[in-house]
Amino acid sequence: MPKQVDHQERRRHIGGAVLRLIATRGLEAASLRNVAAEAGVSMGTVQHYFTTKQEMLDFAQRYNYERATVRIPRLVEQAPEPRTTRSLLRVLLIDLLGLDGESREGARLGAAMLAYAVIDPQAAATARIAYDGLTGFLAAQLHAAQENSELPGHLDTLHAARHLCAVVEGLCGPILISACTPDQALAVLDGHLTALFGDAPGTPPAPAMRPGTAIPG
Amino acid sequence: MPKQVDHQERRRHIGGAVLRLIATRGLEAASLRNVAAEAGVSMGTVQHYFTTKQEMLDFAQRYNYERATVRIPRLVEQAPEPRTTRSLLRVLLIDLLGLDGESREGARLGAAMLAYAVIDPQAAATARIAYDGLTGFLAAQLHAAQENSELPGHLDTLHAARHLCAVVEGLCGPILISACTPDQALAVLDGHLTALFGDAPGTPPAPAMRPGTAIPG
Repeated sequence: MPKQVDHQERRRHIGGAVLRLIATRGLEAASLRNVAAEAGVSMGTVQHYFTTKQEMLDFAQRYNYERATVRIPRLVEQAPEPRTTRSLLRVLLIDLLGLDGESREGARLGAAMLAYAVIDPQAAATARIAYDGLTGFLAAQLHAAQENSELPGHLDTLHAARHLCAVVEGLCGPILISACTPDQALAVLDGHLTALFGDAPGTPPAPAMRPGTAIPG
Repeated sequence: MPKQVDHQERRRHIGGAVLRLIATRGLEAASLRNVAAEAGVSMGTVQHYFTTKQEMLDFAQRYNYERATVRIPRLVEQAPEPRTTRSLLRVLLIDLLGLDGESREGARLGAAMLAYAVIDPQAAATARIAYDGLTGFLAAQLHAAQENSELPGHLDTLHAARHLCAVVEGLCGPILISACTPDQALAVLDGHLTALFGDAPGTPPAPAMRPGTAIPG
């Protein structure tokens, strides 16, 4: 089916151009004209995928999400054994930090979309769906960890998911502006996971901690 | 000194207009012309305070910071006794969440500035200074808590400050878009503080937690 292949290929090409533009020049620069120029195609071709600014933003977010659903399972496959729920969760969370490549573009898109959601109700509604999706997914993973006995059954998984999501999203900004090094961010993330799951083999040592205090679920 | 009073009053008036504009319509809307219209003054008057976009952003951030240095000590005065380092820290952290009023405008400014810092090196440099200032301040407070024996001496205060800062900044986004309620955000913050400091009288009960695991410093 060469036509289908062409379509998928072109969609990726335009999706990549939109994300690159937003990541490097911001939402304001992402006009139909600029996307066409960045992708090296006609405006008519771009309009095959979106015509309004809102449609373009939806396309950018959907395409960013699609890329992640291809990328993350590959990263999971590369994760060292034993593959616990915790170690798989760690792969996803590191990807969300936006340390490099596509993941970095995703984090830049996230910062742009949040600023836009603050002043645009429709974008805020979309962002709420994304937040609920992410915290719901994290909570489901934590629940799976409970079923594997990696976490105690009485943990409030949705609360723990909100906490985890806050840590990761709160590290994104400092990473994006190079206020925080990747090592510093990973130390915070790993310290958080160790507090949640307890010490596990194969994870980096956490900094000094207070014995006898507990991180809440 | 009526002239000095007039100057301070006018500065507050224009500062308020800039922050209101950015908070409700974004950085793009914050032109000299729009600021003058919002403040109900001439463009010439506005140009007394800033002439370029960069100067306006610097002014907005400085003014937002100045307002916080007036607001937060008042909130601290209202904090219930006993006033521990932890309880004073909590007042500051809640203010950073941007739940309402000036604090909400500050959080909206923060989201706009981060999106801008991602694509503008000068804004990124300013944002790095702000991040270092905040994490340095939080680390100093945690160090003071160590000296008061509220925290153990071996805690890595700068690491703990980065973790705390991430939690608070990571809650701001979901709060701004109403994906997370103030109560849910406060539960995450209080859970984090309880994990760090241990149970303290007068703090809300934390959700279910895992005995024997520790939050890293």
